[in-house]
Amino acid sequence: MAPNMSFYDRFRIRHGSAVDLSAIPTDDDGNLDQKATQEATTKLIERIVELQELMYAEGKHSLLIVLQAMDAAGKDSVIRNVFGPVNAQGLNIASFKAPSAIELAHDYLWRIHSVAPRKGTITIFNRSHYEDVLVVRVKSLVPEHRWSKRYEHINQFEQLLEDEGTHIVKFYLHISPEYQKRQFMQRLEDPKKQWKFNPKDLDDRALWPEFQRAYEAALSKCSTDYSPWYVVPAEKKWFRNHLIASVIVDLLESLDMRYPKPDFDPSSIHID
Amino acid sequence: MAPNMSFYDRFRIRHGSAVDLSAIPTDDDGNLDQKATQEATTKLIERIVELQELMYAEGKHSLLIVLQAMDAAGKDSVIRNVFGPVNAQGLNIASFKAPSAIELAHDYLWRIHSVAPRKGTITIFNRSHYEDVLVVRVKSLVPEHRWSKRYEHINQFEQLLEDEGTHIVKFYLHISPEYQKRQFMQRLEDPKKQWKFNPKDLDDRALWPEFQRAYEAALSKCSTDYSPWYVVPAEKKWFRNHLIASVIVDLLESLDMRYPKPDFDPSSIHID
Repeated sequence: MAPNMSFYDRFRIRHGSAVDLSAIPTDDDGNLDQKATQEATTKLIERIVELQELMYAEGKHSLLIVLQAMDAAGKDSVIRNVFGPVNAQGLNIASFKAPSAIELAHDYLWRIHSVAPRKGTITIFNRSHYEDVLVVRVKSLVPEHRWSKRYEHINQFEQLLEDEGTHIVKFYLHISPEYQKRQFMQRLEDPKKQWKFNPKDLDDRALWPEFQRAYEAALSKCSTDYSPWYVVPAEKKWFRNHLIASVIVDLLESLDMRYPKPDFDPSSIHID
Repeated sequence: MAPNMSFYDRFRIRHGSAVDLSAIPTDDDGNLDQKATQEATTKLIERIVELQELMYAEGKHSLLIVLQAMDAAGKDSVIRNVFGPVNAQGLNIASFKAPSAIELAHDYLWRIHSVAPRKGTITIFNRSHYEDVLVVRVKSLVPEHRWSKRYEHINQFEQLLEDEGTHIVKFYLHISPEYQKRQFMQRLEDPKKQWKFNPKDLDDRALWPEFQRAYEAALSKCSTDYSPWYVVPAEKKWFRNHLIASVIVDLLESLDMRYPKPDFDPSSIHID
């Protein structure tokens, strides 16, 4: 590796590059040792907790994390396992389902913008504005002349956020249809998990190749220097978690944050 | 204890009773053994995590937890230590600071109502609408003929929430001025914590007796069957956490929630 390269750089999409998801293994583990990697991930997660606290104290930056994937790829598991220890006061999760009537009565970025993170906090998007160039494109929910303009809207929106102190990183959790099938079967067999399964989930599964093409377009067009996309091999959960935690720690460290100095002399304070 | 009585019942305020906070020890530990109690609390917290997941699956109920206290009593610590393990997708923290211009342009319950929990989730209010009968009363931010009507507004608002499936429980973290002084001194001595201290915090401290009178009125007038107040002795953190976790578990257990049965036959699903 070149100096300053990280093991995860090869999973970062270059803007405008030709993305072929079928050429990226879904069960890649980076040739890392599982046990040592898990221990390293635990330390990285502790560091994320510290860095969020520092970000809150400093009050200059915020962090937006976008998670996208086919069903059952592990978005909820990432939120639980990588971000579970973050202080709940500094972490928000915004889940985007099919838009409501009031949301549809506005432009598609309206509901997104309203839940952007405030300074000092992390917001995770569980699905996101990318659905507006994914499911919307695959199922022709709006005509092509509308969705085709959205990649540019999205890049400009994300540039705005970055310019104003909201840093963005985006993860596509990459799985195979066979892996999804195994996950669905597990849900169907567990009475505590059956409620998570919706027979309509199989409709999207039937459109797997179309979704992959839509993801490839979004990844290529909307992975930018200021808001990169990573394709995360997601079938080895310990590798998935390590990759994501590593990217987050390095991003937060790069902000060079400092605890603010008080604007009073602490030794001068007298408490009766 | 009578049957079905719990160790925490004596900390629950009866509606309309005369509350004398000075008669309630701030360092009470209920004569419990610390080590055994901490182990029990760990199990209670695991149970809260399970019950929130069940509440989400069932989709009928939500839970609103109100935390109020003088500065440095440990609200943030309760959020971190009792609710830290709850799935971030099912937990929201709403912190209420001095109202903004747009908030002041509405009635005082407007900003509160807008962040009430959605079904299946827990929302913790770090401070709350009670500030509108606490700091607002103590500092005469609105005239008495306005704040004096608010106890009834609040009871009616909380009744509405309860009627519609949002269960409410409220905790006043009870500390002494001496304890607060020790906490403030710790903040002033730690460069990583100095930013948390604001010299203006001493203004409220100087009004300690007035705040206690305002708390006593709010506790008495607004502790109801459907939305009780607990006075939590908060100087022994392990006892504080145990009391709160115990109340929450018993409340959630009383809802008799069930995992929903799927509206399809899981064995009939075929996945290609």
